Amino acid sequence: MSDKPRAVVLLSGGLDSTTCCAIALDQGYSLSALTVTYGQRHNMEIDAARKVAAHFAITDHVVTEIDLRAFGGSALTSDIAVPKHDNAADIGDGIPVTYVPARNTIFLSFALAFAETRNADAIFIGVNALDYSGYPDCRPEYIAAFQTMANLATKSGVEGADALIIHTPLIDRTKAQIIQTGLGLGVDYAMTTSCYDPADNGAACGHCDACLLRLKGFKDAGLNDPARYVG
Amino acid sequence: MSDKPRAVVLLSGGLDSTTCCAIALDQGYSLSALTVTYGQRHNMEIDAARKVAAHFAITDHVVTEIDLRAFGGSALTSDIAVPKHDNAADIGDGIPVTYVPARNTIFLSFALAFAETRNADAIFIGVNALDYSGYPDCRPEYIAAFQTMANLATKSGVEGADALIIHTPLIDRTKAQIIQTGLGLGVDYAMTTSCYDPADNGAACGHCDACLLRLKGFKDAGLNDPARYVG
Repeated sequence: MSDKPRAVVLLSGGLDSTTCCAIALDQGYSLSALTVTYGQRHNMEIDAARKVAAHFAITDHVVTEIDLRAFGGSALTSDIAVPKHDNAADIGDGIPVTYVPARNTIFLSFALAFAETRNADAIFIGVNALDYSGYPDCRPEYIAAFQTMANLATKSGVEGADALIIHTPLIDRTKAQIIQTGLGLGVDYAMTTSCYDPADNGAACGHCDACLLRLKGFKDAGLNDPARYVG
Repeated sequence: MSDKPRAVVLLSGGLDSTTCCAIALDQGYSLSALTVTYGQRHNMEIDAARKVAAHFAITDHVVTEIDLRAFGGSALTSDIAVPKHDNAADIGDGIPVTYVPARNTIFLSFALAFAETRNADAIFIGVNALDYSGYPDCRPEYIAAFQTMANLATKSGVEGADALIIHTPLIDRTKAQIIQTGLGLGVDYAMTTSCYDPADNGAACGHCDACLLRLKGFKDAGLNDPARYVG
């Protein structure tokens, strides 16, 4: 372990979490990466996360699988169909069926456990309140409440150690701004994957909310998405 | 589903969570039980939790396994030895090595996901701030902070549904009081297991913190513990 401050980054292998890694490294943190997989995107996510961790020379990378299918209730963890559209403007208002109940709370809880074992005093999570899809657990007030809770939950809460800070560097950026930030830090987005419903060969569908928001982000930034799409 | 209010109860198959079930049922809730297992007590915990769920006729019982061993840092999830003593008075002060980083936060996060899919507006957890072992995530201020966070994390936070309440009916009771409450509600503690380090045949060790606190509780209540012990 180096003298740099240590942070845990939640790394899904997607565009947002990969940009988050680049930002945290640019801010001078040593990173421990945590990939929590669930549901049908398991193998593709792990492959992408491993590529990203290797790219950034993050050697402390833990992959853990959880089973949210037992609960059901989301298109990402059960047999509900992932909605498809032709344009980002067609994405509905309100909470979509791709919402996974308490997902970020579960992810952050694992990150908190990981941070405590690594004596890390920061967690980076690539949530986004602007260009995201209306998930309640992406809002700044939610993140602030989690941080308060986290500091009561752990040893630091009773031993007077440094407080844990949850960093959300993407929370108020558009997808285009996130992409531009990442490119400025040398991110190669060809190694990332965002699709909710990829083909067996890993190609993105191009029509789920995640694909449409990603494609719109590249278009708004005046760029082509280097990811591989079906057809 | 009945007209009764629905609650999720975290059920480890131990003395506390089993008493919690009895209290929640006595308060008129329909229960969905969640058993989250990790580490070496896996099979014994599942067996005990299944017995308890069957005893209370809880048919909606989800068992899910998580892997906290990847993080290390606790006697319950790694190769650190579980401390043994002869008397409860010998249990040390401070946070013990059996503390599992962020354990209750992870458990409550899964319970939150489960509650959301079941439209439950209550979670019961058998934490105890008195006769427990100095874990930071058993304190009332921690539970209150989790509840605040939970109500921002989920659909209820943006759709104005009933707020989620986290019930901790054991939090200020001694182990003896917990046992007396459970017995008054018809709990058979022979079906519960508390040991951190049971023998292969399931018998409790009698000397870990959990066994000593349990045995002291029965002694203080003027009763014999019906659990099976080694030797």
